[in-house]
Amino acid sequence: MRGRGDRLESQLAERELDRMLVTDLTNVRYLTGFTGTNGACVCGPDVRLFLTDFRYTERAAVEVEGWETVTVTNDWLGGIAEHLQGRVGFEDDHMSVRLLEKLTGKLPEGVEMVAAGGRVEELRRVKDEAELAAIEEASKLADEVWRWSVEQGLAGRAEREVARAAEARIREHGGDPSFPAIVAAGPNGALPHAEPGEREIGRGELVVFDMGAQLDGYCSDGTRTYATGDPGEEAIAVYEVVREAQRASLDAIEACVKGEDVDKVAREVIDAAGHGDRFGHGLGHGVGLEVHEAPRLSLRSDDVLAAGEVVTVEPGIYLPGKLGVRIEDLVVVTEDGIRNLSSLPKELQIVQ
Amino acid sequence: MRGRGDRLESQLAERELDRMLVTDLTNVRYLTGFTGTNGACVCGPDVRLFLTDFRYTERAAVEVEGWETVTVTNDWLGGIAEHLQGRVGFEDDHMSVRLLEKLTGKLPEGVEMVAAGGRVEELRRVKDEAELAAIEEASKLADEVWRWSVEQGLAGRAEREVARAAEARIREHGGDPSFPAIVAAGPNGALPHAEPGEREIGRGELVVFDMGAQLDGYCSDGTRTYATGDPGEEAIAVYEVVREAQRASLDAIEACVKGEDVDKVAREVIDAAGHGDRFGHGLGHGVGLEVHEAPRLSLRSDDVLAAGEVVTVEPGIYLPGKLGVRIEDLVVVTEDGIRNLSSLPKELQIVQ
Repeated sequence: MRGRGDRLESQLAERELDRMLVTDLTNVRYLTGFTGTNGACVCGPDVRLFLTDFRYTERAAVEVEGWETVTVTNDWLGGIAEHLQGRVGFEDDHMSVRLLEKLTGKLPEGVEMVAAGGRVEELRRVKDEAELAAIEEASKLADEVWRWSVEQGLAGRAEREVARAAEARIREHGGDPSFPAIVAAGPNGALPHAEPGEREIGRGELVVFDMGAQLDGYCSDGTRTYATGDPGEEAIAVYEVVREAQRASLDAIEACVKGEDVDKVAREVIDAAGHGDRFGHGLGHGVGLEVHEAPRLSLRSDDVLAAGEVVTVEPGIYLPGKLGVRIEDLVVVTEDGIRNLSSLPKELQIVQ
Repeated sequence: MRGRGDRLESQLAERELDRMLVTDLTNVRYLTGFTGTNGACVCGPDVRLFLTDFRYTERAAVEVEGWETVTVTNDWLGGIAEHLQGRVGFEDDHMSVRLLEKLTGKLPEGVEMVAAGGRVEELRRVKDEAELAAIEEASKLADEVWRWSVEQGLAGRAEREVARAAEARIREHGGDPSFPAIVAAGPNGALPHAEPGEREIGRGELVVFDMGAQLDGYCSDGTRTYATGDPGEEAIAVYEVVREAQRASLDAIEACVKGEDVDKVAREVIDAAGHGDRFGHGLGHGVGLEVHEAPRLSLRSDDVLAAGEVVTVEPGIYLPGKLGVRIEDLVVVTEDGIRNLSSLPKELQIVQ
């Protein structure tokens, strides 16, 4: 983890900061390896302090690498404040108004708090080898659970039952769901954020099945749309448009391409098929310690892709009252293309 | 849910607020019934607005009661801002520094944002009949899972295995764990926040087993300490001190008593037995939509208990390197005592 603190430190000078205070626990984990529920980092030239309380001193000794652990007793904010000096960046996108006010009341003289959120999230975009391996393992686990779920049959079971069984299967294999699985059949497929309900999956329906696993902190995310028997011509046509939109946008990804431009590639295919107003979300997002993180592939994104980033590519078409189709792969951006972590077929799978 | 908005409104006048903006999702759920992941409330005289985005319009129609739903398109903060006027209280303990700054940039003229966190948390302290019923159901489910876990035998299994099996059992019965179960045997029992590990539970050990279920949003929380065969004289003596501390503090609870004073009752029993420095946490906390909420039973608490509050009572003694004991019940505070929701025995249970 030493290199991560160094990369953070190297950002301080250009922002004229003397120290950076990191309080978001995901960012703290990224920098130090710490997985407990109370911790903070203070980073500066030759300063790598990890602060926690007595409950976690032992855990920190095992987990934290490259940072000096300080156990704060009693006054948590006071314990942090005494290690701050000069211009101190803080994570304004995570810290509450009240916490900043309380911390400000305890600052040593001459310390100025400066809004500087998003610095660690920026570092987290490009994954190292160990991170890529962890994400790949999570992705493999989820792929196995899709295969297993389909082997059990989908038709005749409640959406909720399929979703809960898949989540339980992920846990049996040592992971956690990276978000509650979505299983949305028939007209429910048209609601991109439907909660799986008691509705029984019918024959000849499309089933949107969106799922991810988390292993050793790292997430996967993917979606397949299955058909429980022949879903009819319109459904097949919509499916093939989404598949083509996905193929084209996957082809468009490589280092130095804009997230916005990749989104456009998928959107043009869907537009051309007359469904332009039925693709109401962005094409994809980064995945790592969090299931949604930078960069974004969307029309509102300024992000430029870099080798080593891990992103979803998930075009969809949603016909209200009828059906939905989404196909989502998880891919690593490389210098000249992608490495696709998803191992599931993309031809429409007719299942039980 | 209508009454909850009215109670919030009645707090505005005394704080000279014209509106209250509620953004914490647990508080939004409490006020409106909404269970989705994006929503906010604006409350004022004759104003009960619930704001969400297009993904949740349908869900809001089903769930939200007594509040007018407004679907915000595109500019979320701008959509909120246009419903604010005068002095507007906001939840400074939840809202990030950045969000407040962005919102402030969109305010209509004459609007002033005033830090006013904790108002809804205060309302949430006293539970109504439906809430008490939900917590009681969650507590019953957890009790069943303790009985089932012990029937499977504890000795010879890894702590983690016992914890994961209990969590899976909660899910099979339609609930969720309200936090990751703690199973800490032998010397691990002395670490109050130990993560269940690969260590096999031995014979003649004390096993601290802390668990809760969440059903329909409401949580339970409880702990029992089991012995896998005769744990020896010292362990039994420590167990009986904790049991007596719990009995005495349960007896001390009724409406209008201070949380601090209830904590003292338990602490005095443990002090008198010579373990005063081995009870390193507060006696208890409120439980509801969150597993830790107001009021607090601790030496640092200013809370005065009221009928209808639900609190844990969980004294413990932790002997480093040796063992830990914690006994935790979940109780409803009544005018003249308590109603104990825990149905498990408190005599030391010798189990397999």
